[in-house]
Amino acid sequence: MKSGYHLEADEFRRLGHQLIDWIADYQQKVETLPVLSQVKPGQVRSLLPAAAPEQGESWGRIMADVNRIIMPGITHWQSPNFFAYFPANSSGPAVLGDLLSAGLGVQGMLWTTSPACTELETHIMDWLVDMLGLPAHFKSSQSGGGVIQDSASSAALCALLAGRERATQFSGNEKGLRAPLTVYASSQTHSSIEKGVKIAGLGKENLRLIPVDDHFAMRPDLLAAQIARDRKEGFLPCFVCATVGTTSSNAIDPLPAIGSICRQEGVWLHVDAAMAGAAAVCPEFRNLQEGLELADSYCFNPHKWLFTNFDCDCFFVRDRAALIQTLSILPEYLRNQATESGAVIDYRDWQIPLGRRFRSLKLWFVLRHYGVEGLRFHVHQHVDLARQFADWVAASEHFELAAPRPLNLVCFRHKGGDEINRRIQERLNQSGALFLSHTVLNGRHTLRLCVGQTHTALNHVQKAWELIQAAAQD
Amino acid sequence: MKSGYHLEADEFRRLGHQLIDWIADYQQKVETLPVLSQVKPGQVRSLLPAAAPEQGESWGRIMADVNRIIMPGITHWQSPNFFAYFPANSSGPAVLGDLLSAGLGVQGMLWTTSPACTELETHIMDWLVDMLGLPAHFKSSQSGGGVIQDSASSAALCALLAGRERATQFSGNEKGLRAPLTVYASSQTHSSIEKGVKIAGLGKENLRLIPVDDHFAMRPDLLAAQIARDRKEGFLPCFVCATVGTTSSNAIDPLPAIGSICRQEGVWLHVDAAMAGAAAVCPEFRNLQEGLELADSYCFNPHKWLFTNFDCDCFFVRDRAALIQTLSILPEYLRNQATESGAVIDYRDWQIPLGRRFRSLKLWFVLRHYGVEGLRFHVHQHVDLARQFADWVAASEHFELAAPRPLNLVCFRHKGGDEINRRIQERLNQSGALFLSHTVLNGRHTLRLCVGQTHTALNHVQKAWELIQAAAQD
Repeated sequence: MKSGYHLEADEFRRLGHQLIDWIADYQQKVETLPVLSQVKPGQVRSLLPAAAPEQGESWGRIMADVNRIIMPGITHWQSPNFFAYFPANSSGPAVLGDLLSAGLGVQGMLWTTSPACTELETHIMDWLVDMLGLPAHFKSSQSGGGVIQDSASSAALCALLAGRERATQFSGNEKGLRAPLTVYASSQTHSSIEKGVKIAGLGKENLRLIPVDDHFAMRPDLLAAQIARDRKEGFLPCFVCATVGTTSSNAIDPLPAIGSICRQEGVWLHVDAAMAGAAAVCPEFRNLQEGLELADSYCFNPHKWLFTNFDCDCFFVRDRAALIQTLSILPEYLRNQATESGAVIDYRDWQIPLGRRFRSLKLWFVLRHYGVEGLRFHVHQHVDLARQFADWVAASEHFELAAPRPLNLVCFRHKGGDEINRRIQERLNQSGALFLSHTVLNGRHTLRLCVGQTHTALNHVQKAWELIQAAAQD
Repeated sequence: MKSGYHLEADEFRRLGHQLIDWIADYQQKVETLPVLSQVKPGQVRSLLPAAAPEQGESWGRIMADVNRIIMPGITHWQSPNFFAYFPANSSGPAVLGDLLSAGLGVQGMLWTTSPACTELETHIMDWLVDMLGLPAHFKSSQSGGGVIQDSASSAALCALLAGRERATQFSGNEKGLRAPLTVYASSQTHSSIEKGVKIAGLGKENLRLIPVDDHFAMRPDLLAAQIARDRKEGFLPCFVCATVGTTSSNAIDPLPAIGSICRQEGVWLHVDAAMAGAAAVCPEFRNLQEGLELADSYCFNPHKWLFTNFDCDCFFVRDRAALIQTLSILPEYLRNQATESGAVIDYRDWQIPLGRRFRSLKLWFVLRHYGVEGLRFHVHQHVDLARQFADWVAASEHFELAAPRPLNLVCFRHKGGDEINRRIQERLNQSGALFLSHTVLNGRHTLRLCVGQTHTALNHVQKAWELIQAAAQD
């Protein structure tokens, strides 16, 4: 029997260098690969053996299977021809920061389990407040603070729970939910709010989807009317989610009006800017977040449009005490002097899980490599490319814009109706040349082109427009 | 102005190789570093500038700050002298698998957004069922299936929600919670259950902490009695959490008895084996999971004791339909043919967040590099080392065992009372030579030594015992 099966340090060096080169090669050729994976259901599994290997296998065999089995089953989110959904962009510095996090292998549930993991995170979340022109009360030096969550869904759930508990004087946590609480979002709000309402035990029937205006933005007058009606009927309104840049069409809910309703009503206001929030690195786009000072919580995802690989959602609260009171637990086996001194943050009380990765490293690497100037340049360039594309659509005979284009998402359609739009989308996605997704606006099938991949440049957007026009002609 | 700020491919290669070497160096020297970080609250932050850099900085400056600012603030989870909490062990293959995941940058929320991300995960979760001797109904080819969660906390929350919904015929999701539901765990159960009960809106008052026996295992007779009492008083029991290897002392709840109560009562049984579950790779330890065929769900963490870096929790359910019905959402912008065909798994409906990393790659790399044989060897070795340590304690004049030692956790204390145990722990942890945590058992301060770090060998455990004895003498 062998004395041990671990990878030797020298082997780790050699294989690590090979893998770094493999990734660099991948990034250089990714734009030539079919963006949407062309495999059929079950195809990847059919190539895998029925059982785990009894004896260990060589690195060569493992990487051969990566190339043969895994790669055909990849939808290339890092392709510059990926225009679907919202992006999940990344960058070299982010990948290296994430690698360092894996190499250190720390678990940052408590300050004491790696003080740097907590303090770097707190610190760069404060940096972001200044970088993005966010309200100063989101800083840890004031009443608030920021924390990295895995996703905007989890951030929204934490916000919703804090809103639920604040409205019930924290009795939901203790006694369980009895009072009929209500939650408000627009009909265009991300599905994570519906999911959060279910998880939190509030019930989908108590989620009020407020109608939107012609620009797909929440109607604050209807929000106020609904809240009034609910109060009259004995409901307790506890939470409103407003969106800066909806997933469907990038609509911007009017924060000043929504915010003053929430303040007046004492209802927790969460603002979800999962993709659009990154745009605030450019001062000229900060008008989109006007009124944010009225929010109780806010999130945006560097893993969407700030060159930081998934997962990295930045979540800020105005009153950290409310969040901590909602989520804190302290079993004996986690007690320690630093926690009891009250001088430190224990991020386990700011999130759903207990354990956590050292995720701030990758974001720190990105901020330092690019500088604010570099991030501003690339985000601005993406918006310019989307504007250019929208101009082509607007000038075209056969296509039309389906919604305003505040930033990097263009919603458009062929004038020939739903069926032709579906067929254009299907043909393009099956071709592998680019990947578009869709939504339904005013009952009509609408194509979405979102410019946010790290290496997307003018030639990719030009080619996309040519291919879209060609597909329409066929 | 520059034309772009991205890291060039050749630079990525060069810096990537450097970072791989940095990590290899770190792993080789980690046992010489103070295990528990010695920094004071605020020390790391005091060394960071007040604002993000306007211009990008060089890699040399970034890595210099990693060495100067971050490293003193690291508690070295990967040190072979780390014996605290439960381990978060890792390995070369895991780090490389995680790096590949970062390099590909896919987001696997839907099958279609990278079929390989979903299918590899489903497939190796089925492998684990066989590898660990788990009930076959946890396989995707039967009624169940497995999914990788970030942590056992999130797995428990998903299980709790499914149990809540099954008990209310899924009306909690729709109408919100009105009926008084009750949840059961032992007084030794992990704090994540209390947190989950709060999140799910059930209320801490409705969490029944069942007393334990002399071995800190749940008393099934008292569970049955409590359920009967609750039913009589009009409560609706919906969920029981049993633990195989509690965090406090590694106690093993009696699954056969608890399971038959749950079957009889129609209550969802979740089994949390966050650390101990890895032991089942060795057939001789599978007696610990006897009765698991009666569970509705199960989880264990390869990121604790199976050489796979955080985060990686394996969560299995017997009836995937109940889980999916609890967590599913389908907005228009996520609709696609594969989902509508019903032929694929969309893991967004198996977890709290929407987005997800390609986490199965790192686990696949670990399984293939080590083979089942290699994993068995190292897990067995850790248990042997813990047994050896427990024997020394049992034979010692001044120390005693405080609980049974079924696997790799030894709970022990100096016979001289709480104060001396606190001082021993404090002195050892401050010395940097090793890191121990504690718990309270039968009201007494108890030291915990858990053997699970990848490179922990006999000499580390021997040195720990020498240092513990020396600290006691001082």
